[in-house]
Amino acid sequence: MRQVFSGQGASRGNALGRARVRLPHALEVSEEHIAADAVDAELERLHEAIAQVRGELRGLRERLHGALAHEIGEFLDLHALLLDDPELLQGLDALIRKGRYSADYALRLQRDRLAAVFQGLDDAYFRSRVEDLDHVVGRLHAALHRREAELQGVAGEILVTDNVAPSELAQLQSQGVLAVITAGGSTLSHSAILARSLHLPLVVGAAEALQQINDGDVICVDGASGQLVREPKAADLRAYRARVREERRERKQLYRLRREPTRTLDGTDILLYANAESREDVADAHALGAAGVGLYRTEFLFLQREGLPDEEEQFLAYRDAVLGMTGRMVTIRTLDLGADKSDRSGLTLPSEPNPALGCRGVRLSLARRDVFVSQLRAILRASGYGPVRILVPMITHRGEVLEVAALVRQVARDLRSEGHEIAGHVPLGAMIEVPAAAIALPGFISDVDFVSVGTNDLVQYLLAADRNNEALDTLYDPLHPAVLRLLRDVVRTARARRKPVAVCGEMAGDPVFTPLLLALGLGELSLHPATLLEVRRAIRGLDLVHLRARTPALMRARDRAGVERWLEAARPSA
Amino acid sequence: MRQVFSGQGASRGNALGRARVRLPHALEVSEEHIAADAVDAELERLHEAIAQVRGELRGLRERLHGALAHEIGEFLDLHALLLDDPELLQGLDALIRKGRYSADYALRLQRDRLAAVFQGLDDAYFRSRVEDLDHVVGRLHAALHRREAELQGVAGEILVTDNVAPSELAQLQSQGVLAVITAGGSTLSHSAILARSLHLPLVVGAAEALQQINDGDVICVDGASGQLVREPKAADLRAYRARVREERRERKQLYRLRREPTRTLDGTDILLYANAESREDVADAHALGAAGVGLYRTEFLFLQREGLPDEEEQFLAYRDAVLGMTGRMVTIRTLDLGADKSDRSGLTLPSEPNPALGCRGVRLSLARRDVFVSQLRAILRASGYGPVRILVPMITHRGEVLEVAALVRQVARDLRSEGHEIAGHVPLGAMIEVPAAAIALPGFISDVDFVSVGTNDLVQYLLAADRNNEALDTLYDPLHPAVLRLLRDVVRTARARRKPVAVCGEMAGDPVFTPLLLALGLGELSLHPATLLEVRRAIRGLDLVHLRARTPALMRARDRAGVERWLEAARPSA
Repeated sequence: MRQVFSGQGASRGNALGRARVRLPHALEVSEEHIAADAVDAELERLHEAIAQVRGELRGLRERLHGALAHEIGEFLDLHALLLDDPELLQGLDALIRKGRYSADYALRLQRDRLAAVFQGLDDAYFRSRVEDLDHVVGRLHAALHRREAELQGVAGEILVTDNVAPSELAQLQSQGVLAVITAGGSTLSHSAILARSLHLPLVVGAAEALQQINDGDVICVDGASGQLVREPKAADLRAYRARVREERRERKQLYRLRREPTRTLDGTDILLYANAESREDVADAHALGAAGVGLYRTEFLFLQREGLPDEEEQFLAYRDAVLGMTGRMVTIRTLDLGADKSDRSGLTLPSEPNPALGCRGVRLSLARRDVFVSQLRAILRASGYGPVRILVPMITHRGEVLEVAALVRQVARDLRSEGHEIAGHVPLGAMIEVPAAAIALPGFISDVDFVSVGTNDLVQYLLAADRNNEALDTLYDPLHPAVLRLLRDVVRTARARRKPVAVCGEMAGDPVFTPLLLALGLGELSLHPATLLEVRRAIRGLDLVHLRARTPALMRARDRAGVERWLEAARPSA
Repeated sequence: MRQVFSGQGASRGNALGRARVRLPHALEVSEEHIAADAVDAELERLHEAIAQVRGELRGLRERLHGALAHEIGEFLDLHALLLDDPELLQGLDALIRKGRYSADYALRLQRDRLAAVFQGLDDAYFRSRVEDLDHVVGRLHAALHRREAELQGVAGEILVTDNVAPSELAQLQSQGVLAVITAGGSTLSHSAILARSLHLPLVVGAAEALQQINDGDVICVDGASGQLVREPKAADLRAYRARVREERRERKQLYRLRREPTRTLDGTDILLYANAESREDVADAHALGAAGVGLYRTEFLFLQREGLPDEEEQFLAYRDAVLGMTGRMVTIRTLDLGADKSDRSGLTLPSEPNPALGCRGVRLSLARRDVFVSQLRAILRASGYGPVRILVPMITHRGEVLEVAALVRQVARDLRSEGHEIAGHVPLGAMIEVPAAAIALPGFISDVDFVSVGTNDLVQYLLAADRNNEALDTLYDPLHPAVLRLLRDVVRTARARRKPVAVCGEMAGDPVFTPLLLALGLGELSLHPATLLEVRRAIRGLDLVHLRARTPALMRARDRAGVERWLEAARPSA
């Protein structure tokens, strides 16, 4: 029987297929005791399962590539962290040892105990933490029975479930799942943002659908409106096909833009650079007509291995990127590692109470000069093959800039005296992501050749809100008036000294924010190739003179709501 | 034989006494195996020791009172965190279980293994982490042998040791130790800052002294110059007595200032408020002539207990503070808890990856409205007994201010309708410690009655540098030009709207910073009673017109060195 459900559209796109329903993996384990002499074996079984899950998480981490590696990786790290939580582990040991419970039942008791703590808190707050907890407990339970814990998707099907973790989404898409429908979740969650960049249709808040839809039902999904139709009729199918055709037509039009200039309606060219960390990213950047690579991440060389990469290995990777861009600029960011559970290079500290406020980026590089020098040597050697710039992350004060600049000069001298062919001048830039650096930029702008604003971390520090803490989802907000004010100031300072200034955080890759960034005076953006054409299209629909005339109104906004109203009004009436 | 050593003076003051030398508690345990059937007993012995140390740390935490509770508490939490580190614990278990090592030897192996990781890093970096590690390992080792691990001091003696943890300093002073001499350390470390506020003489960097001084040697310490004399002669003793007399004379003069106005040389009155969290603090504040209480911390009501305090218990505490100030203003800060290991109230989350960027302050209060309302009710009820203001921590955006203001109005209505007598208007203020709030202040200054800048957290977020991470000791820097610029902007914004603005972080309590704060336009400071008179004396020696004429020079400083030169020049030539 035809039935219509409505959820919230969290990621646009259409899908038609059979439903696969996964009910919440509730841990229905009944009380189960073991004999005194079985305690050791049971403990061993538990610890093997823990080791297995740890391995699973690490394996997932290493298989990550491309644009999402960063985002998803951080979630996996969060789960790995929870897995290491002594409250969880010691409680389990004690339950088995003293309570003589089976590992399964101990797991359930311990899960319920921790969940009760979370549930003592307000709604939005505990929900996301219990999700993380259940994700880890679910994996452990599966490992105890030597099963895979992953939410398994089936190619060509539509997954209907209670909730989906960001780390599961990419997996589901690679398994060929057409769309995901969840009972919980919000359109602002990290899962939703991720689904949008994966172009995977997602409908959230469809609790009724989870109750009523059965395995095998045929479902028609509209990820834009959030409408779901069970057992669609002829009219539904016609509407679906029309939407799919429209989508395809749109995508074709978009693809034609790869050879078009990135020019506003009133004729100003904007530079679109690509963020890249693989050969494929570089090839895509080139094919889509990026002005160059605005942010080449180098962490992958350090993360997917034991030990440290040597100079030669790094040089080959950087040279490939330079050659791949055939003469367009490649901006290589020096190592941006911090206390990170999945780092096995031995570079970072095993534990810091607040790793985001710890020894990371250039702080770590300056503490490990040997590693830093070998990276700088590799970068400078690559400069012999095409234009290269060096971008330094986590700059906090002028002293660091001067120290790095001196080191680069020394390395260049050494290389030349060893007979290497390197560029005459390799521009040195500061990543602006620490608020103090943004505010004090006038004091050191003359010491750098360019700047690039990393909005992801800048927002996190400015708002003192961990961007991977789902409990703070609504607090972490790139539309906070302070973010816009600081961005405007940075752009003004750089432009006054005729230094190039770009934005390379997630804001740059979302066409929703494009009018805002142009209004703030930006003329360079760096973003993942996957959204480059969408942003180019957005720019081609904007009138810069008109936008800049509205900048003062933007700066007067007192809160997010005011900024949203401005964005609403700035949207081209296409 | 008389011998002179020179270290660096880290905390002024003079001492004469016998030396007590504590060599580094190196863990000299030789390889020791246990029988297979002794494994369980050994594991139990280890886990009992861990539980004991956990209890020791918690006990220390609870005994903390007054000014230093906050600062030392954070170090104890850091050690507790290390104690919970699964790398440490699981490694120990495995060594005992699989290697059949004694718990003592396992502890040594595991300590060396982790220390090797730290030592792979640059000097300044690993040193402070190995110190933390050794502190915890030392406690564990002592607990295995049912001994107290604390660096024991003896009344009337001078402690000579390798290094001293901030958590040990207060303990040492209460045991009557006269002075501390360390081989390592720096004058900028947290231990040094703490020693200065404890008025405990401290000389650091005296490696030679540690090698040459023996137990029982008579030592004469000058904490200002860092000079140490072993077996002093008549001339040394005369000089020592002269210094002590001078010190006493100075202290007497200082004490006379308790009835003097806090007025600059050119006749401007500055308001000195006190930070307080106990009845003694309030009594001191009153006796020293504080303008009121500028920051009444309420965390102690929640930390030193199981469960939550009820409205009545809070009301009694707040009323006592109000009565104690006999009509002067009392500014009560609402709960400023975050994910904190020693919190047993069940309010905060058991684990957040970056607690400093997590759900704390007003975020937690708004997530736990029941707790927040009972606190607001208690504060408003206290307003019936004298002037009270409400100060809200961790304000990030305007929405939170409006939400809290609405809640306060609602609570006031409820109380009046229940027949309580409360003040007509209780001013509501925002603590400015999140950079975004400082920058966006113009957007919500009209929504608050006053603001107070919490420089400790503001600096931490602005510089993205955890202030309790000793590895970042030199990076965490209140003299960063961005801090000064933002402070000046906040003061300007508030003054333009005629709203009172104070600074209540540690900067306010250190007379070194007083000229700088006055130059930035501040006319209100809030600080612990212990340093109130010193700051008053500093203010009485400053010429405001002269200082403000030099503000533009201060704002032109491009780095810390520039700010230091300004401070040097601003020092009154007394």
